[in-house]
Amino acid sequence: MIRDAGAGRPLAVTLGEPSGIGPDITLLAWQRRHSEELPPFYVVGDIGHLKARAAQLNLDIKLASTTPREASRAFADALPVVPLGLPVTARPGTPDATSGPAAIASIRRCFDDVMRGDAAAIVTNPIAKAVLYDAGFRDPGHTEYLARLVKENGGETVQPVMMLWSPDLAVVPITIHIPLGEVVGALTPELIVTTARIVADDLANRFNIARPRLALTGLNPHAGEHGSIGLEDRDVIAPAIAILRDEGIDARGPLPADTMFHAAARKTYDAALCMYHDQALIPIKTIAFDDAVNVTLGLPFVRTSPDHGTAFDIAGTGSARPNSFIAALRLAAQLTAKAPAFA
Amino acid sequence: MIRDAGAGRPLAVTLGEPSGIGPDITLLAWQRRHSEELPPFYVVGDIGHLKARAAQLNLDIKLASTTPREASRAFADALPVVPLGLPVTARPGTPDATSGPAAIASIRRCFDDVMRGDAAAIVTNPIAKAVLYDAGFRDPGHTEYLARLVKENGGETVQPVMMLWSPDLAVVPITIHIPLGEVVGALTPELIVTTARIVADDLANRFNIARPRLALTGLNPHAGEHGSIGLEDRDVIAPAIAILRDEGIDARGPLPADTMFHAAARKTYDAALCMYHDQALIPIKTIAFDDAVNVTLGLPFVRTSPDHGTAFDIAGTGSARPNSFIAALRLAAQLTAKAPAFA
Repeated sequence: MIRDAGAGRPLAVTLGEPSGIGPDITLLAWQRRHSEELPPFYVVGDIGHLKARAAQLNLDIKLASTTPREASRAFADALPVVPLGLPVTARPGTPDATSGPAAIASIRRCFDDVMRGDAAAIVTNPIAKAVLYDAGFRDPGHTEYLARLVKENGGETVQPVMMLWSPDLAVVPITIHIPLGEVVGALTPELIVTTARIVADDLANRFNIARPRLALTGLNPHAGEHGSIGLEDRDVIAPAIAILRDEGIDARGPLPADTMFHAAARKTYDAALCMYHDQALIPIKTIAFDDAVNVTLGLPFVRTSPDHGTAFDIAGTGSARPNSFIAALRLAAQLTAKAPAFA
Repeated sequence: MIRDAGAGRPLAVTLGEPSGIGPDITLLAWQRRHSEELPPFYVVGDIGHLKARAAQLNLDIKLASTTPREASRAFADALPVVPLGLPVTARPGTPDATSGPAAIASIRRCFDDVMRGDAAAIVTNPIAKAVLYDAGFRDPGHTEYLARLVKENGGETVQPVMMLWSPDLAVVPITIHIPLGEVVGALTPELIVTTARIVADDLANRFNIARPRLALTGLNPHAGEHGSIGLEDRDVIAPAIAILRDEGIDARGPLPADTMFHAAARKTYDAALCMYHDQALIPIKTIAFDDAVNVTLGLPFVRTSPDHGTAFDIAGTGSARPNSFIAALRLAAQLTAKAPAFA
């Protein structure tokens, strides 16, 4: 059974880095479309490159060149490919000069499709940032690029928020890819409050949780033990939580982070807001290593992605597992179906 | 079946904070001595206080005043209590003036017993540090107190190292109860190297692991991504690992901390050395919340303790679960039996 992803519209899948495992997991996911009950999707790429990858993987898969509007109909019989308009020659494991331009153009096309209403949501395959930078990409990553496109195309300034989601646990790192020594300086009540508001909004509107329960970690061991192990829990995080509660948001904390993630504790909240990268990613990757999905909150559309990288070393070998990509497709469809007003 | 804990000698159990759950879990563990196949142990406490707690918990338990040398024989029929020589009047949940002196004297007596060879190892019940400070206690905690006693009684300077152990994962925080903002300043190659040496030694000599495999976390997200997210991974942790490897220690890293703790990754090492408190305690408390044991490495004897606090709110109510305390008894017996030369 193939479910609709938002009024019959397909999901737009980006190519990602063409020499990474993006093509592999896209092909494998389509092959399992029936057994995994996947929503219709198309990939924006070069059909020749994708056919070559299928052959290398010994996958007997039909590919069909199509438009976004025809993709859902084509999906049952062939993997719908919306032509990128750029040739891709990169071989598995080895990015070449066609890699960066193709990866960027694929994201851009998916963005246009979702904004036009031709796609229900975007699922992005992993990119290699260094390759994109060489091709003139100026943003830190997917998320910031999409946020900039939103602003350039509508004037709206958005603050994208990364959430890692699995059926058992959802986590949001409030600071992300900064050195640990800079976390204290980067954490402000404002940053915590604006992040938490976006999480609360999207949990309500996209995840259909009537009254989302947010649990905020402490920064220091034991959440600072009343100020005896650092003052930030008391002076930065607690005031932010007070503001959120005043706004009617069910926010709790700061809680000792080490006791927040066991099975019983996880049942007491809908998302854990964590102060830095490892505090958020250690627990979710410990319990849901293969199945966690990256979902970007705060955008005017749904965007999910698998929670892994390009894995150059296994691209084209048949070792790549599409679990997280499949989970990303499923979550995108689920969020789109639940909140059609957003799509 | 009751196993011997090191040549027939019993384990010495400290009272801990008498108004906490220490008495509860000690009584409950003894009650399950047969079903849990526990090694013989005695507790150093006030027999009247312990009898009152048993009555409050509706536990039909016999207690026997004994000496350490007679404790193993008494263990089958009664919980052996080695008299503290101090009265204890503290009621569940409410420390009083007898609490601190009793908790301290109990630790001291267990230390003397293990150094004399009358006990095989020490298992400590949770203490309330504030209560101990009021009673004149000068050390940061159990571990430092025991290290000071070792030095005062033999002149040997020891560096105790805390390891959290469970059957699935063992972690060592290299810095512990300091604010997150002080971690960068506290981490030095020397601290990492001396800690790792002690872990490698004790895993070999106490845990009987012929060639212990140590995995060291990175400090920054993705272990710093080659210096693009912080320099400490490259400039502090990597040099420490190089020193350890030169000494023949199987040390690997710095590894991205978020991908080190899922089930497959855990099988590749015997202990994870982590740079700060939450990096170590989040993963182990996520997967082994009830069963993790605190074991102190680097001491001239085995000391374990349950991985929880005094839990004043449930002391005397019957809600306390002895799982972690039982795991601490088991691990102490196992380490003592495996390495009799240390005991």
